[in-house]
Amino acid sequence: MDLDSYFADFTARDWEADAGEKNGGDETVRIALVGLGGFARNHVLPALAGDATGPTDRTRYCEVRALVSGSPEKAEEVADEYDVAHILTYDEFEEGEDADAFDAVYVAGPNALHLDYARTAANHGKHVLCEKPIEATADRAREMVRACDEAGVTLMVGYRPQIDPAARRLREMIRDGALGDPVAFHGWFTGHILENGGPDQWRLDADLAGGGALMDVGVYPLNAVRFLFDADPASAQATTSSPDPEFEEVDEHVAFQLEFPGEATASCTASYGAQADDRLRVVGTEGQAELAPAFNSETNPTLTVTRGDEEFAYTGAFVNEVAEEFDYFAHCILTDARPDPDGRDSVADMETVAAIYESAETGQRVEVGDVGA
Amino acid sequence: MDLDSYFADFTARDWEADAGEKNGGDETVRIALVGLGGFARNHVLPALAGDATGPTDRTRYCEVRALVSGSPEKAEEVADEYDVAHILTYDEFEEGEDADAFDAVYVAGPNALHLDYARTAANHGKHVLCEKPIEATADRAREMVRACDEAGVTLMVGYRPQIDPAARRLREMIRDGALGDPVAFHGWFTGHILENGGPDQWRLDADLAGGGALMDVGVYPLNAVRFLFDADPASAQATTSSPDPEFEEVDEHVAFQLEFPGEATASCTASYGAQADDRLRVVGTEGQAELAPAFNSETNPTLTVTRGDEEFAYTGAFVNEVAEEFDYFAHCILTDARPDPDGRDSVADMETVAAIYESAETGQRVEVGDVGA
Repeated sequence: MDLDSYFADFTARDWEADAGEKNGGDETVRIALVGLGGFARNHVLPALAGDATGPTDRTRYCEVRALVSGSPEKAEEVADEYDVAHILTYDEFEEGEDADAFDAVYVAGPNALHLDYARTAANHGKHVLCEKPIEATADRAREMVRACDEAGVTLMVGYRPQIDPAARRLREMIRDGALGDPVAFHGWFTGHILENGGPDQWRLDADLAGGGALMDVGVYPLNAVRFLFDADPASAQATTSSPDPEFEEVDEHVAFQLEFPGEATASCTASYGAQADDRLRVVGTEGQAELAPAFNSETNPTLTVTRGDEEFAYTGAFVNEVAEEFDYFAHCILTDARPDPDGRDSVADMETVAAIYESAETGQRVEVGDVGA
Repeated sequence: MDLDSYFADFTARDWEADAGEKNGGDETVRIALVGLGGFARNHVLPALAGDATGPTDRTRYCEVRALVSGSPEKAEEVADEYDVAHILTYDEFEEGEDADAFDAVYVAGPNALHLDYARTAANHGKHVLCEKPIEATADRAREMVRACDEAGVTLMVGYRPQIDPAARRLREMIRDGALGDPVAFHGWFTGHILENGGPDQWRLDADLAGGGALMDVGVYPLNAVRFLFDADPASAQATTSSPDPEFEEVDEHVAFQLEFPGEATASCTASYGAQADDRLRVVGTEGQAELAPAFNSETNPTLTVTRGDEEFAYTGAFVNEVAEEFDYFAHCILTDARPDPDGRDSVADMETVAAIYESAETGQRVEVGDVGA
């Protein structure tokens, strides 16, 4: 297939097309937001309930009906601004108050609290969109999958880049063999976390976060290479360091290298204390591609593809990744489809994270799945 | 210092300026080429003896006076074309015939033969410019350093990118702290070696080459990060694979990760069987830079630097890297300066290569210097 054909309908929602006649109708999924942190207020609410007008700036298949917050004042203010009818405390959410007002919950906040919120939602028969990473450990991630399976509710994890058109077009190319066989992946996600939240945030608390730069930003290239290669790594080698005192409990910098069964490798880095950047590159036997930015949802990604002497570059029209993510989640519920990234996908991430941390500690190549299994 | 100041006199030969009044005069170093392979014929001879006119297209400080070759016909043809007075067989070179006609030798050809040629040159009091990698093993590299030291001749290894203005400007920035502290390096060099030389070349012979993609192309990012960070890696973690039958003896693909004492890491890949590409990226606490191409001398490199919200990009005027390399080597001899990359620099590369191969085999993090020491 010609390379340019992948660029022809770049922002297509392939998942809408795949749904065929199930698609359509004007049903929506009613969402409760659990936690009103910065990302929920600044990105999720505007995408779900803001006054943007473009088709990709605001969700089509879902709406916000309830807010769960430990801070009544903040909740009131947000409810007023976005015209949300129901406000719940965490206890009320736990007890199932106003549960008829929503169909699904969005779980954010500290990683180590995700399981409790998701289990509560599942117990009330609510579908779950859980922020990444799914939990603080692989065991707790498995427990969340089990709870949602038993309750028969949908569980999706918020890896927005998987729903981003640029990453989806790139995966189509790789699946079609347009770059030949995958050989190497390079990906990184770096920034200065202290500039956004200071030293007292939960992301620097090992118990609440489950880890540092790897858990928060390193999981992006990790999840991306699994998505793009459509494969799980067999083993990991890794190094972490925390030169600055604020990162006493967690990794400030991480470098990890993954081996995939088909000979391909991934070389990834992430940092809480470096110049902000995020990009990925796939090198195949017959071509390569770079996506930049790859994990940051706030600017248009440019996808550059080289095959032999051909080169194509595409900078997409702006697509609101949060709207894409929530619409995809809601669409899966409405069409009875299993989302990808689902909970199992995130369990695989967490098993790889465990292997990465063990390798960093022991210096050994660690088989994924061997840690704490 | 402002970022743009590093771009102001981009192609400057800082090493000429550093020489002060030693610099100048119209002395030249007379070179003998040992081996007339493709690189010598297609790149070295045009740069040293071709009819290019620009100041950076042809060497200023050296000239070709002798050719050492096992093929008299090829040597005659080349000598005619470039007006070279002396032709020697390997035996004649060994015996010191016409040794008065040249001051230095350029050693190319199979890695495992470099030591013998360099030792012969040293024995005759000739300076040595040895193609990279210096030899097939760290032990033989050390032996070459010893032989040149004992003879009191200059030994330089042909890592052209170290003499390339783009890499030199980038190192100046890093040394000045313009990017903050180095955190991570990503570099790769890939291509299809079978398209250039087929399956019977010495590069695929483990004894002659000492290794595969790592030895031939992987040493570029390895040497580059040591040059740019001005540091030696403490340890290595690595993976090699050879899925295709032509690479039975050597690594077709390699991925390696290096840890530096100051917490920085390098994530590198190289391949004999992937889409051609070569580039490097340095991520620092306060800025980052990309150089592409980084290791291929045939096109203009573009250096892109980002610091906070500032971004600068520079695509240099064409600089003939081979002419730069030979002129720098000759200039070191004429001004009695120690070249950098010297032999010890390359011994450090080979010690890292040994650690990389051992880690690939054992899966362990291997301290550099611990292998076969």
